[in-house]
Amino acid sequence: MTTPKLDQALAGEIEALAGEGRAKPPERVITGYLPPAGTRGPRYTILGQDREFIRLNSNSYLSLSQHPALIAAADAATHACGVGPGAVRFIDGTFSYHRDLEERVARFTGKPAAKIFNSAYTSNCGLALAIGSAKTHWIGDQLNHNSIIRAMRIAGVPSGHKGIYRHNDMDDLRRCLDEVEDTIERVVVIFDGIFSMRGDYAPIDRIEAVCSEYRDRFQDGVITVVDDSHGIGAYGATGRGTSEYSGATPDIIVGTFGKAFGVNGGFIAASEMVVEAVRQKADTYIYTNPLSVADCAAACAAIDICDSDEGLQLLAALRERTGRFREGLTRLGLESIPGPHPVVPLMVRDTARTRAMVQGLFDKGVMVVGLTFPVVPKGDESIRIQINAAHTEADIDYVLEILARLQ
Amino acid sequence: MTTPKLDQALAGEIEALAGEGRAKPPERVITGYLPPAGTRGPRYTILGQDREFIRLNSNSYLSLSQHPALIAAADAATHACGVGPGAVRFIDGTFSYHRDLEERVARFTGKPAAKIFNSAYTSNCGLALAIGSAKTHWIGDQLNHNSIIRAMRIAGVPSGHKGIYRHNDMDDLRRCLDEVEDTIERVVVIFDGIFSMRGDYAPIDRIEAVCSEYRDRFQDGVITVVDDSHGIGAYGATGRGTSEYSGATPDIIVGTFGKAFGVNGGFIAASEMVVEAVRQKADTYIYTNPLSVADCAAACAAIDICDSDEGLQLLAALRERTGRFREGLTRLGLESIPGPHPVVPLMVRDTARTRAMVQGLFDKGVMVVGLTFPVVPKGDESIRIQINAAHTEADIDYVLEILARLQ
Ligand SMILES: Cc1ncc(COP(=O)(O)O)c(C=O)c1O
Ligand SMILES: Cc1ncc(COP(=O)(O)O)c(C=O)c1O
Repeated sequence: MTTPKLDQALAGEIEALAGEGRAKPPERVITGYLPPAGTRGPRYTILGQDREFIRLNSNSYLSLSQHPALIAAADAATHACGVGPGAVRFIDGTFSYHRDLEERVARFTGKPAAKIFNSAYTSNCGLALAIGSAKTHWIGDQLNHNSIIRAMRIAGVPSGHKGIYRHNDMDDLRRCLDEVEDTIERVVVIFDGIFSMRGDYAPIDRIEAVCSEYRDRFQDGVITVVDDSHGIGAYGATGRGTSEYSGATPDIIVGTFGKAFGVNGGFIAASEMVVEAVRQKADTYIYTNPLSVADCAAACAAIDICDSDEGLQLLAALRERTGRFREGLTRLGLESIPGPHPVVPLMVRDTARTRAMVQGLFDKGVMVVGLTFPVVPKGDESIRIQINAAHTEADIDYVLEILARLQ
Repeated sequence: MTTPKLDQALAGEIEALAGEGRAKPPERVITGYLPPAGTRGPRYTILGQDREFIRLNSNSYLSLSQHPALIAAADAATHACGVGPGAVRFIDGTFSYHRDLEERVARFTGKPAAKIFNSAYTSNCGLALAIGSAKTHWIGDQLNHNSIIRAMRIAGVPSGHKGIYRHNDMDDLRRCLDEVEDTIERVVVIFDGIFSMRGDYAPIDRIEAVCSEYRDRFQDGVITVVDDSHGIGAYGATGRGTSEYSGATPDIIVGTFGKAFGVNGGFIAASEMVVEAVRQKADTYIYTNPLSVADCAAACAAIDICDSDEGLQLLAALRERTGRFREGLTRLGLESIPGPHPVVPLMVRDTARTRAMVQGLFDKGVMVVGLTFPVVPKGDESIRIQINAAHTEADIDYVLEILARLQ
């Protein structure tokens, strides 16, 4: 009934994390959303704070979470079929909403088929379980998301069957491919599309070129997988993501409905057979309830918007605001990592200064994320700023003004 | 862009599954829900089928998925704060709805604190990551849910640090505890509350008694964990689950909002420190979007109902219908595994006959799940029937009538 000895041991472990600078501070609690008004974009209220906040740390890049079409779609689905599916997919937990969203994702990504999951996190886990085998070797970018790392674990990939290449380094990817043992039948090269801490992107065209040199060496080929969670919907001329931006499409696309699409959930888009293997073998698909019909309907509505003139306008606004912010940073002599993605890192390169700036922004009603050692290497301390299509020009200028004063 | 070699290899793997009787048939697609009317309980429509169906394979035991209070709560939350959180918990993806649900779960389970996840599946994974250590040994029931098995994988528990005891066999649990190496500091004993394929339950009082004999042997003690996904909300005098029914409460309770509570999502309820360790160390909590505010609000409303007179009435109806169905089976001379849980297995003990009966029921508008070898051992072939508080007496009698004719 009580766990005093365990609690004491865990307290020690958490203290150790804190000592390393890895412990997470208490969570802030958002209590409300205030819609845009005039030249003012959306604002948020926070428990215990009197003022309203601009959010520069939301992944809902197009502000679709609040879009009336998504809210209406969610409501209608809930009223038609209830708040939860009440079962897993293969035991009659499959509603037409699930199938419709899968068809919509396939169409949007240009892949023959797709499967949906509760998150991109469990999508990656499911993919590893579905396409991995005892003779599969996995190669990934050094900065890949935690869900890819854990996917290797949940699928029991032995360390001898894993390779890691230096971030976006094609020579090192080649080294990893060279090092694959001859007994291996299947190689999977997996990478984030957008690296969320930096806003830079995987050079998919070059990755594909390198991998194609090795395709014939292995019985089942070299399979490329992009986890484009931060790219899909927000990146490329028509929001198709990093594939579109870089001009090359990997064999398999993993993504989330929880960022640009503004909802929740994840997907795998691929060949019919890969998707069937997911259905048959991905435990994180098989043994857990699927998304609610509300989430499915809202995600469908989000993709429809991305695929319309309205979506192109939102993307244009996002690009314009991102450009405006980047220009402002340059004008202020502040350093960033170049690139068109709405993740704009402000390189501070000092822990104390990063903390002070994050606090200074917060005091003026701006929410951002500070990345300090050891989350990023020493010298790479930065503030991650995420631009949103709903930010107004006045919002962007206000943030730049505060940054100018904090310098 | 295409994966012909991989597809061919996967086709072979799926064929092998089919050869073993493990492949899943195509998913049926539910197209609509028809509310109860008169003496007729809820019905469902299925793609490609003309008739309406009684669902005897839903985990939404109290039919709360369709409850007006849950739907209203989901709608209101969506309108207030949008369809998706747009961020992970520690980067300002925490809304008051998340915190409120965590407080509600703690209160309902009688634990000091709770954390919510997207599913019970990821809750188990997160728990293993949060409380596991290099010197932790895990012991589980042989019939534990897939998510517990995979949780061991994702947390990288070596095989030497795992023990499995025969289903509900306390002597074998003792053997597992005896076999733990002396270098181990922490032992976790983890088990399903209700075993979903059989409807039987873990004898928590006896498990606690056995474990308490060993508590002093290990520095951090022996920690007991129940995954009460099929029990919480649906079992025990006031719906507290298997703890309540068996009269003993484990140290940690894992559960789902996706079954009796009728929504989606999972939770861990435990001491403040365990919950803080989850927040700090459970990657499946940290690096993925949390539930939508709609799911949180609906789950809160569901717990409120379970905690009210209405909940007691629903539980009474569930017990009454379950009893009526069990009596009917006995009258027909059909075999089950005794017990009060709404999962009522019909032991057929033959694969061909199980398949024929499942099809016969379907042809008459009744959805059930057949469990055949190798999903269950040879001789244990059965039909899993799940009774629901919303089934009417007429529904139950109709199903019994069909079973009588199928004998
Ligand atoms: C014991 C147990 N744990 C976990 C789950 C999965 O629950 P969820 O759908 O919330 O992931 C189930 C349901 O299948 C279960 O029976
Ligand atoms: C590359 C990548 N994959 C997966 C995720 C997790 O997405 P989800 O919230 O859908 O699990 C993220 C977001 O944090 C991400 O950046």
